[in-house]
Parts: sequence; structure tokens; C-alpha cells
Amino acid sequence: MNNFSYWNPTRIHFGKGAIAELRNRVPESAHVFLIYGGGSIKSNGVYEQVVSALRPRAITEFGGIEPNPKYETCMKAVETGKFAGVDFLLAVGGGSVLDATKFISAAMRYSGQDPWEILAASAPVTSALPLGCVMTLPATGSEMNSFAVISREGTRDKRHFSSDWVRPLFSILDPETTFSLSSRQTANGIVDAWVHVCEQYLTYPADARLQDRQAEAILLTLLELGPKVLKRPTDYEIRAQLMWCATQALNELIACGVPQDWSTHMIGHELTALYGIDHGQSLAVALPGVLHFQREKKRKKLSQYAERIWGLSGRGKTAEEAIGLTEDFFKSLGVNTRLSDYGIPASVCEEIGKRFSSRGVHLGEHRDLGGSEVAEILKSRL
Amino acid sequence: MNNFSYWNPTRIHFGKGAIAELRNRVPESAHVFLIYGGGSIKSNGVYEQVVSALRPRAITEFGGIEPNPKYETCMKAVETGKFAGVDFLLAVGGGSVLDATKFISAAMRYSGQDPWEILAASAPVTSALPLGCVMTLPATGSEMNSFAVISREGTRDKRHFSSDWVRPLFSILDPETTFSLSSRQTANGIVDAWVHVCEQYLTYPADARLQDRQAEAILLTLLELGPKVLKRPTDYEIRAQLMWCATQALNELIACGVPQDWSTHMIGHELTALYGIDHGQSLAVALPGVLHFQREKKRKKLSQYAERIWGLSGRGKTAEEAIGLTEDFFKSLGVNTRLSDYGIPASVCEEIGKRFSSRGVHLGEHRDLGGSEVAEILKSRL
Repeated sequence: MNNFSYWNPTRIHFGKGAIAELRNRVPESAHVFLIYGGGSIKSNGVYEQVVSALRPRAITEFGGIEPNPKYETCMKAVETGKFAGVDFLLAVGGGSVLDATKFISAAMRYSGQDPWEILAASAPVTSALPLGCVMTLPATGSEMNSFAVISREGTRDKRHFSSDWVRPLFSILDPETTFSLSSRQTANGIVDAWVHVCEQYLTYPADARLQDRQAEAILLTLLELGPKVLKRPTDYEIRAQLMWCATQALNELIACGVPQDWSTHMIGHELTALYGIDHGQSLAVALPGVLHFQREKKRKKLSQYAERIWGLSGRGKTAEEAIGLTEDFFKSLGVNTRLSDYGIPASVCEEIGKRFSSRGVHLGEHRDLGGSEVAEILKSRL
Repeated sequence: MNNFSYWNPTRIHFGKGAIAELRNRVPESAHVFLIYGGGSIKSNGVYEQVVSALRPRAITEFGGIEPNPKYETCMKAVETGKFAGVDFLLAVGGGSVLDATKFISAAMRYSGQDPWEILAASAPVTSALPLGCVMTLPATGSEMNSFAVISREGTRDKRHFSSDWVRPLFSILDPETTFSLSSRQTANGIVDAWVHVCEQYLTYPADARLQDRQAEAILLTLLELGPKVLKRPTDYEIRAQLMWCATQALNELIACGVPQDWSTHMIGHELTALYGIDHGQSLAVALPGVLHFQREKKRKKLSQYAERIWGLSGRGKTAEEAIGLTEDFFKSLGVNTRLSDYGIPASVCEEIGKRFSSRGVHLGEHRDLGGSEVAEILKSRL
């Protein structure tokens, strides 16, 4: 097992009615910056619950955070928040709203030239406003981690950063808030959680049987409940279990002591930045390509995945079969897995390959995927 | 799934050489109260590593914390610590040393009459000195939770308390420090971790598939590696995986949203308080009795346990078989499972039964085990 450090101080309040816990978690004297997305929280009752629990605290609202939240929008929020004098940020929505809130909290305290440096140049975050969240879309795990991903419209970039400063002080997860998600949102979330696990699990063996099994625990549960939730979207027990799976898939626990990949995410981010497809869709396209391209180096873990998740045994083609079944699973949820399904032209392969080449980055647990390898992976996904 | 709150801010540093991290984790100006046990840390090199990493901080030492740490010893430590003016507590040792340190940290700040009230009367802990730990014995999970168990020699009581105030700020886990553990200590630790999982897993179904599988992940890993570690006690990879299993078995994660039992621990504590057997031994005696007595109410989870952990399937006697295999597993590790193995007389059954009756407590996830039921369980373990 590799050496590791683990620290995850986010407080979780999970279950029916948990939004009322805001009363105890947000400082009484806070001027709250309430940040949300397209307004669905105003039609599903979440907004009323939040505002009622926050009373009588001062609230300044900022709505309109888009999926794949934009730097440009975040910077408008920074301006609004500074002008209003907010001192506590509350994200109400999915991973995009929370990621935006994380960036806004760091940007409001950023002392450098341009907060974009945090994303593009890994400029260190040395302070941030305190933040909490009401998570309404199980997918990104952002509710219990230090990560955020932000897109820049001007340059069609999608970049991430990580800082302990932007860990939510608390996250409230009420599965009932997810009843109104569309099939597309739900399915994308399942794919996102699935791929988070794969990035930390499908690498090479590292004498970490417990972490492997903790990863498999999430995959098996997603596999069982994914198809069910699409048929019974208001089944509390199913929604609750999926919600907790998404959190556990990226709260850094299954990453303890093991190698990590993340090339599927890096490639997926480019697809979204350039062609605007959903994050979950981009992962469903990229994952089978990455796994197939790396199948020799990932052979041992792919065999374990084939056996324990898909019930395949024996030598030979089980790894390839498992990759195929993974793709079938995504499709069964209604998430397409080919570039052509989304009308993305073949030129994307070289286009994205060149982007990685020009940045000089190499992806994967062996840092062996440069621009030309990425282009090849994408060609297998046309 | 039941509603739950989860908060676990303890920072973990895991791996070879991790003790050096004390340098960064203990405040530079601290006057450290270094608390340890029987002195094994002075023969296995741990003491030197700790003292070297703490330099040049002021250190006051307190050695001699015994297994099943005594209230009387802790109160001597409180006196020593107050007299010296320590302001940071560092436990170096196993769960007993850490539990004692947790109690000492609370007792040093206790404003009531007698700190024993924290244990016997659930007097609230409203402050404690900050503490950290170097954990050298995988077993109790104390390194990542809010619990502590303390014994009182005078009254032969063994009681627990829990407070967020006594959560370790950090815990350092270097598997190499466990190489010198005896087979008995190692085996007791495996049984302890196993039973921690069972207390949170073998109850009744609560629509918590992920938590179930996270629990099973620990059991399967303990089952695979338990026998191996006794043959290869200095195998780093085995020691590391067992160490992380013990932490995960009682860091509150697998308890999220599910019912909990804890009757095996409560009965085991009485056996240790009255007859001085090891904690792990007391659990190995009590668990099969509890599971057998409660087999109808626990039927569904016992069947799942039989199938997923022991590979048993089919109807009928699989639950009973699984209980038998559990007992065989403990014995295979060298931990005996009968009261008579430890020379404990049959009178213990009524003796312990009466203790629970007089306290008026009822144990188990259904709170249905009073004194007479406990006596009956113990009779099945003669």
C-alpha cells in the first residue's frame, strides 16, 4: 500500500428533512450568499425550505449558475458578493453550483492578479470564505471533497483546482430533493459516480484489498440500483442509496494508498469544453476508450473488475468483455457512448490531442498518455 | 436508510516513516504530555522516533497505562499533567493508551465533582485538551473515533464515553510499528475489528446496500489476512491492510444510516471487568452467544453474512453455520471462545445478568436484552 494522508472534515447531514439543520450549521450572524442554478430549487420546494431554515439571517441571492459552471458567471458572483458584503456562502443545487461556489469563495479572497490563475496556473489558494451546501444531485461528490471544475467560455477551457480551503464545512443531503431530477440528470450522475470509482480503482494492484472492496461496494450498488431508479424516480430508499454512493465515490476514501488514473476525466473535460456535451456523457464516451487502450497495463485490475462486478471468470477476453458490459450499462441508462452519437466530428481526436500536446501534460496512473495517445483513444470512440 | 449525521475530522497519516509527521502536526509551542503503556515503545524504536520528531518541544512523560486502562491510573496522569502544565496530549501505543488519553484530556478540563461521572453518569464533556496519537496496535479504531472505554479497579466497572471533544486531531499509523506485536495482541485486534463490524452490520436490513458492502469489505479482508499475519508478522503489506481495516471498522462510516447492536461489547466489558480477560477474548466468547440468541431477529442479515462472507447459500441452517464458522475463525487465530477456556465459573452468568438488571439497561438493536437474557446468553458460552 502506498503511504497516504487522509483528512475529510466535512460534516454530513443526510436524510428526510435534513435541510432544517441549516439552522444549526450556518452562523447566526452570517450574511449568507445563497448560490443556485437554473431555478429548479424554486419549483421543487427546496428554496422555501432553505430560506425558512436560514431565517432571520441576511441573505443575498445569486442564481443562474449553469451546468459546467463558467468562470465568467463566477466572476459576476464575486462582484455581487463583495458588493453585498456576504461572509458565508451556501450552495444549493448540484455539483456545478457547488463547484462554482467553491471557486467563488476562493476568488473572493484571492490576492493575486486574476483568479483564473487558480485554475490555469495552479496558483495556491491561501484563503477562502466559509461555505456549506445543500446537495440536490448525486454525481460529483463535490459535497465531501476539496475539488472544483470550472469552464471558461472565452477560451473553451475546462479546468479543475483543489484546496482544503474550499471543503464544505457541512453538506446537507436530503434524497427527497432528488425526486424531481430528470432521467438524463440521474443517469449522468450514475455514470459520473461510476467513473470516479474507476479512476481510483482500475489502475494496477497496490496491496489494498480493503480499498478495492470499498470501491467495488459502490460499483455493485450503482449497478443494482441504477436501472431501478429510472423506473421508480421517487422511491426514497433507492434515491438515498444512490446519493450516498455518489458521495463515497469521490470523498477521497477509496483513493487512500492506491494509484489514481483520471485520464477519462481529463479527456471528458475537453469534450465538454469544446462541444458542450454533459459531463456524464463525456465520461461515458471516454472511459471505454481509455480502458481498452490501457488494457494491458490495467490487465490485473480489469480482471478483478470483470470477476467481482460483472461475474466473469476465466482467462482471455474477460477484461474486454467487462469493458463492453460497462459500455452496455451506460447505454442501458440512456447515456450514449460514441462521439458520433453526439454529432461530434472526427476532427475532435486531433484537436484534443493537440491541446494536451501543447500543454505538455501526460495523463494516467503511469503518466504515459500524451497528445497522440489521447487522439488514438478518441479515434476508437468515433 | 435511517437519517444520519457524519463528521470525522481526524487527520490520518498512514505509512512507513509517518511518525516524522509529528513535526508538522503538534503545535511548535506545545508542552507535550507523552502518554504510553508498558514501555514496549522503548524497545521497538517508536519512542526514539517520537521524541526525535517532537524536538525541541517540552515533553512531560507518563508511562504505565495498562490494558483496559484504569480510572485510577488516569487520575494520576491528570495530576501529573496539571502539575507540569501540559497543553497537548500525545498517546503513543494501542487503543488502551489512546482511550486513557482521551479520558485524561477530558478529565483535565472537567468542571464537575468527579470525572468518573463522565463514564458512569454520562456527564457531558464540554471541553478537553487537544490530543493526537501514534497508534501501534490495530484493533479498537480509537484512532479515528470519539469513543473511549475506561475501567475502575475499585468497583470492577468498565464503562465507555463518547465526545467530539476527544477526537484525535491526528492519528499516525505506521504499520512497521506493529511488527513486534505478539500473536495474542494481533489476534485479539483482528477479533476486535471483526466484532466492531458485526455490531454495526448484523442487525436487520435497513436499505443500506453500500454500508453493508463496506462492512463486508472489512470482514472479507480480515478473513483473508488474519491467518496470514500470524505466519508473517513482519510482512508490511499484510500489516498495513489489517491496520487500515481496524480503523475503518470503527470510524463511524459503516454505521451511517443503519441500526447498531453493541450487546457483545457490553457483555464483553463485564467479563473483562470481573475476570480480567483480554477485550478481544471477551468478544470472542460473547459474539457467538449473542448471534445465536438473536438468530431469529437477525435472520436476514445473518443469511447475508453467511452467503457473502462464508460462501454459504440455501435456506435452513446457514445462519447457524455462519455463527459456527465465525467461532472457528476466532479459534484458528488462537482466541478461545468459551468461558471455561478462561477458567471463568458458571456463576458469572447470573452475576453479569444481575449487574445489567440493577442498572436497568437493555442491550441490542431492539433494546430487548435485559439481565435475564444476558444470563441466558452467557450460559450458552460455558
